Amino acid sequence: MGAAQSFRDMCDRTKNTNVRLSLPAVCVVWQIAMIILFGVFIRYDEESDPHWIEHRKHNNLTDIQNDFYFRYPSFQDVHVMIFVGFGFLMTFLKRYSFGGVGFNFLIASFGLQWALLMQGWFHSLDYTDGKIKIGVENLINADFCVAGCLIAYGALLGKVSPVQLMVLTLFGVTLFAVEEFIILNLIHARDAGGSMVIHTFGAYYGLSISWMLYRPNLDQSSRLQGSVYHSDVFAMIGTLFLWMFWPSFNSAITDHGDGQHRAAINTYLALASTVLTTVAVSSLFQKHGKLDMVHIQNSTLAGGVAVGTAAEFMLMPYGALIVGFCCGIISTLGYIYITPFMEKYMKIQDTCGIHNLHAMPGVIGGIVGAITAAAASESVYGHDGLVNTFDFKDAFANMVPTKQGGHQAGGLCVALIFGIGGGLIVGAILRLPIWGDPADDNCFDDEAYWELPEDEESIPPILQYNNHMRNKDVDDTNFNMEPDPRTRS
Amino acid sequence: MGAAQSFRDMCDRTKNTNVRLSLPAVCVVWQIAMIILFGVFIRYDEESDPHWIEHRKHNNLTDIQNDFYFRYPSFQDVHVMIFVGFGFLMTFLKRYSFGGVGFNFLIASFGLQWALLMQGWFHSLDYTDGKIKIGVENLINADFCVAGCLIAYGALLGKVSPVQLMVLTLFGVTLFAVEEFIILNLIHARDAGGSMVIHTFGAYYGLSISWMLYRPNLDQSSRLQGSVYHSDVFAMIGTLFLWMFWPSFNSAITDHGDGQHRAAINTYLALASTVLTTVAVSSLFQKHGKLDMVHIQNSTLAGGVAVGTAAEFMLMPYGALIVGFCCGIISTLGYIYITPFMEKYMKIQDTCGIHNLHAMPGVIGGIVGAITAAAASESVYGHDGLVNTFDFKDAFANMVPTKQGGHQAGGLCVALIFGIGGGLIVGAILRLPIWGDPADDNCFDDEAYWELPEDEESIPPILQYNNHMRNKDVDDTNFNMEPDPRTRS
Amino acid sequence: MGAAQSFRDMCDRTKNTNVRLSLPAVCVVWQIAMIILFGVFIRYDEESDPHWIEHRKHNNLTDIQNDFYFRYPSFQDVHVMIFVGFGFLMTFLKRYSFGGVGFNFLIASFGLQWALLMQGWFHSLDYTDGKIKIGVENLINADFCVAGCLIAYGALLGKVSPVQLMVLTLFGVTLFAVEEFIILNLIHARDAGGSMVIHTFGAYYGLSISWMLYRPNLDQSSRLQGSVYHSDVFAMIGTLFLWMFWPSFNSAITDHGDGQHRAAINTYLALASTVLTTVAVSSLFQKHGKLDMVHIQNSTLAGGVAVGTAAEFMLMPYGALIVGFCCGIISTLGYIYITPFMEKYMKIQDTCGIHNLHAMPGVIGGIVGAITAAAASESVYGHDGLVNTFDFKDAFANMVPTKQGGHQAGGLCVALIFGIGGGLIVGAILRLPIWGDPADDNCFDDEAYWELPEDEESIPPILQYNNHMRNKDVDDTNFNMEPDPRTRS
Repeated sequence: MGAAQSFRDMCDRTKNTNVRLSLPAVCVVWQIAMIILFGVFIRYDEESDPHWIEHRKHNNLTDIQNDFYFRYPSFQDVHVMIFVGFGFLMTFLKRYSFGGVGFNFLIASFGLQWALLMQGWFHSLDYTDGKIKIGVENLINADFCVAGCLIAYGALLGKVSPVQLMVLTLFGVTLFAVEEFIILNLIHARDAGGSMVIHTFGAYYGLSISWMLYRPNLDQSSRLQGSVYHSDVFAMIGTLFLWMFWPSFNSAITDHGDGQHRAAINTYLALASTVLTTVAVSSLFQKHGKLDMVHIQNSTLAGGVAVGTAAEFMLMPYGALIVGFCCGIISTLGYIYITPFMEKYMKIQDTCGIHNLHAMPGVIGGIVGAITAAAASESVYGHDGLVNTFDFKDAFANMVPTKQGGHQAGGLCVALIFGIGGGLIVGAILRLPIWGDPADDNCFDDEAYWELPEDEESIPPILQYNNHMRNKDVDDTNFNMEPDPRTRS
Repeated sequence: MGAAQSFRDMCDRTKNTNVRLSLPAVCVVWQIAMIILFGVFIRYDEESDPHWIEHRKHNNLTDIQNDFYFRYPSFQDVHVMIFVGFGFLMTFLKRYSFGGVGFNFLIASFGLQWALLMQGWFHSLDYTDGKIKIGVENLINADFCVAGCLIAYGALLGKVSPVQLMVLTLFGVTLFAVEEFIILNLIHARDAGGSMVIHTFGAYYGLSISWMLYRPNLDQSSRLQGSVYHSDVFAMIGTLFLWMFWPSFNSAITDHGDGQHRAAINTYLALASTVLTTVAVSSLFQKHGKLDMVHIQNSTLAGGVAVGTAAEFMLMPYGALIVGFCCGIISTLGYIYITPFMEKYMKIQDTCGIHNLHAMPGVIGGIVGAITAAAASESVYGHDGLVNTFDFKDAFANMVPTKQGGHQAGGLCVALIFGIGGGLIVGAILRLPIWGDPADDNCFDDEAYWELPEDEESIPPILQYNNHMRNKDVDDTNFNMEPDPRTRS
Repeated sequence: MGAAQSFRDMCDRTKNTNVRLSLPAVCVVWQIAMIILFGVFIRYDEESDPHWIEHRKHNNLTDIQNDFYFRYPSFQDVHVMIFVGFGFLMTFLKRYSFGGVGFNFLIASFGLQWALLMQGWFHSLDYTDGKIKIGVENLINADFCVAGCLIAYGALLGKVSPVQLMVLTLFGVTLFAVEEFIILNLIHARDAGGSMVIHTFGAYYGLSISWMLYRPNLDQSSRLQGSVYHSDVFAMIGTLFLWMFWPSFNSAITDHGDGQHRAAINTYLALASTVLTTVAVSSLFQKHGKLDMVHIQNSTLAGGVAVGTAAEFMLMPYGALIVGFCCGIISTLGYIYITPFMEKYMKIQDTCGIHNLHAMPGVIGGIVGAITAAAASESVYGHDGLVNTFDFKDAFANMVPTKQGGHQAGGLCVALIFGIGGGLIVGAILRLPIWGDPADDNCFDDEAYWELPEDEESIPPILQYNNHMRNKDVDDTNFNMEPDPRTRS
């Protein structure tokens, strides 16, 4: 390894991945800021405060009528999606599993704190005392908000430093909260599962950043930009937990009762349908009809994204199947044709293919939501059901479904604008040469930011041999398997 | 790899595993059929329809009295068992992890749609408008129905093509729905956790198919019919999620309140007991007292199967422990003695040993259920409790426990007949030479149906060397580690 | 392998790891004892008994007012933590993943049965008929009790036999139940998430045993006392499921409504904060600022331990963040400085570093709980809230918060005494030369107690080469990769 090491050291002179000062500084300073802001602003809401027992007696409520019991199981499912689902989906690279699951863990943990504040100011501020009152629904929304940033991370996987990811998350959560407030409160669009608010925004935010951070010589790391057998199995853990719990994601904050019930059913069906068309297209477009794990890991989830907005509407079971059917096809074709096209001609390098998994299905979801809303009627929903489902109350008591459809479309545009615009600005910031990102030939490699175990197990023998061939003129003792220098220390 | 490749190509001439046309065709055509049938038949039930808010007001119900809140957490646990539990349990083979978890994903996704229709026609058809009305309980039952087919897949793992699996699932779900209707509605047997309906049926269905598809030369693939260290750890993910969530499986559709509560407790205890006897027998029957991962991965689950029928009855905590105790012993002995016997003398090749994990414990579960039902009395259950637990209502208002015991035994027979009979018929269909199944020397190999990553990581060096020795006369350059032809393209 | 094998056999003569008689005997005898004791003592409680339907009518309760619906989702989360969380966290060693997850499975399955009895005698005994009445809350408490023993296992991982672990669990559960009764009932300390009762007790119990079982020559196994790339990823499964479900752990048995709600929020926040300071310290104290997986896998969980006691109190959101902040720092520094110090100077070998993950954060949690309790006031909690949260009822109706703070501190002392004292006694028992524990050069090796797959995949080539070099004088044919003797049989 001696020669390879010195070559790598040389590169490190131009690109320094040492984050020994910047990463601890960012983590500690921002965490202290969170503590101070939480001290000033955040309190328990009525249902998580000890006075609830008095409130309950006063209002004649039963034990169970605490929102905790309506939402907590869904919250835990969403929580698993954020940390295990997104985290393990990104372990597929042969030498970036630590970074995939580890940095996902880091930025989600920071992002949810900042999201509680940002979303709290917009949605849960108690004007009597100027405090944000939080309960289980705020925890769900914070997890949702973080999902936007994790989607963006998918485009950048392996090419950025943890410090850049913290910056991406800080701005991403901020943009998210503003965009969400505009879409849900000002425009009064409905978006239960966040097709627009989370997926469209998050995906275009990440793609724009990736465009700003374009690396023309990324093929120098191509030896590491692939999976090995077991890393693909790890990624399936992420896929399956996302797939299974997506009904909880789309129903977590919908109306109690039929709203949550219907959202779960629609999502369950859309996802089942997506699996079949993903398999069909994956097999049809490969030589010998073999399936590609990339498609199975990712495109099978597209249906869940695309019913996000309409999940609580009367999409009908067959409607959910149709949405899933189309998205499985589109998403898989995206992996086959669009991702290479975007890399080659549009200078957008999208490691996880979030354009196929989140961007396109998210936009489709926004459109499906607009159509379904515009087609709503009292005969289908009932008078109370219509008012309840679309929240035609207070300032929006005079809304009608056709107009709601227009508002939904407006919401989609806002998500696109915030995603692209925000991504360009944040991407410009992340281009500054101070963040410790890796060199072009050092991407997709955990070695940049992680102490690795002494073995080289997951580099298969054939690659070791290839490395040896490349370095033969430099250091011929390499192949004699002399101990890794790290093991000596 | 050159020589190995050409040898393999030669075999492929006789057995063509190319499913490039058949697999996409089956997936797309069947998915379109699902969409049409769902459009004609499937609607939301009362509790997932927007009119629920009016229904609720009219009936003076609280928010929480929507079945969603009684069943959804259990549903999600069952969902995890189906996709992660069964899926990862089948990743144990060294080179069939993709097929194990991936095909499980495919057939479960198709099966649950078809199950919603088939079970809907029998159980949820609203005769006023000819529509099937679905809610969360239907989703659970669809997952249950799929479990039968996934159990059958366990016997066939590595030896069939995905097209065959789709056919197996189509017929399996159909047979399941008929059998379930006969057992639960006509015979009026109770089977909360499906010891008979799911496990006995599914296991004998799979074993009969395996007998029909017997491969005399399967030992040509014996090099791949084993695990590697990490694939065994992956399989433990499946084992543990099945084990942990089995209490939810057995209690998911039992009566609200004490029914669900008791079923969960009984299952929890039976499974705990099984672990200890599995470990005991595994250690006792191995040289040097070493534990065998096959037993730990599978036999520890037998107790959950065997309390499936009786979980909601007054089995008593010690009764659950006794059932688990016996099943751990029987199931582990099955792996040691019966599986090799069946392969050698009965021409039944059972890759995952479903005979030990599902068939025998399922039959035991049916018998335990019959005995427990026959022994029921008003003094133990109370009058209302007895009526409620055994559903002695309507046409069955005059049933008595002893008679119920006989009906339970009758249900077990029906499950056996449908399993064996259905398996023989479907097995005959699957023997047709049109399904793209692998050759005898190409089983247990993901390479037949999956694009594999370029490395050979999970084939350990020693096997590479052995391959080399075998091929030495053919191609001596093999061991020089020339790049895999696939990496060149 | 020939030479290595014979060398190993030689060692086995002095240390015999053959547990072929002792392990089955212990498992079967103890399981039979459980069946008898369950038969004599354990019955269903009111809410899991079929008479509940009458009880419900009589008391005018709704369907949902069965504790099952308040506690079961939390129970399942706790169950996942015990079996997947603890189990996979201990898979990090390169050659002890089977033992990590498998023995965890074994002892948890035994422990929970014994815990139902021991805790039942102290807490759920119905004096009218001398029976223990169990429901879902008992299942949660049994899982909690087992957690104490699994923590202790963390210190001993790789160095003890399964028989020793069964003994450790038998005594551990017994001690736990007594200690818990003293702390919660006699001293009337509150400990929702078990900072004192579970973590402090369990950690010092394990550390004391480890001190008694000190192995001066453990460095003979140092080649195996580390991770490989994929075993670290497996361990992240354990980490994340512990991290995600910790809010359920700390809220599982708190008061219905605001108690559970608040405990979940506090834990969620503390854990998020811990992740950031863990990353900061891990990066700051490593050369080149690289992160260490050991810290990410373990120290990120310290915040959950440390808010265990105070989670249901009015710790305030910023208070939870502060606790998490401090524990991330302390725990990570513990891994860097204290664990090596303890091994070198105090003769305590702590494989998983439970001193940093459970002992120190547990003690901190006890202190935080005492302070938070002492600072409680009616103005913050409300009169009913204060009575409810601290259970100032019956014999303790005259308690005041300041006095409660003292009782909390007393509880912490009891946990320490039981942990250390119990550990010394049990450690002395485990030193007897009858338990089949491995020799010093055979630790951290699954080969002692498991039939391993034939391959040597997870020993990387470089180590194979090193082994070869070490054995060169003994057996020069070793490196010629002759088949493992096991594969011949």
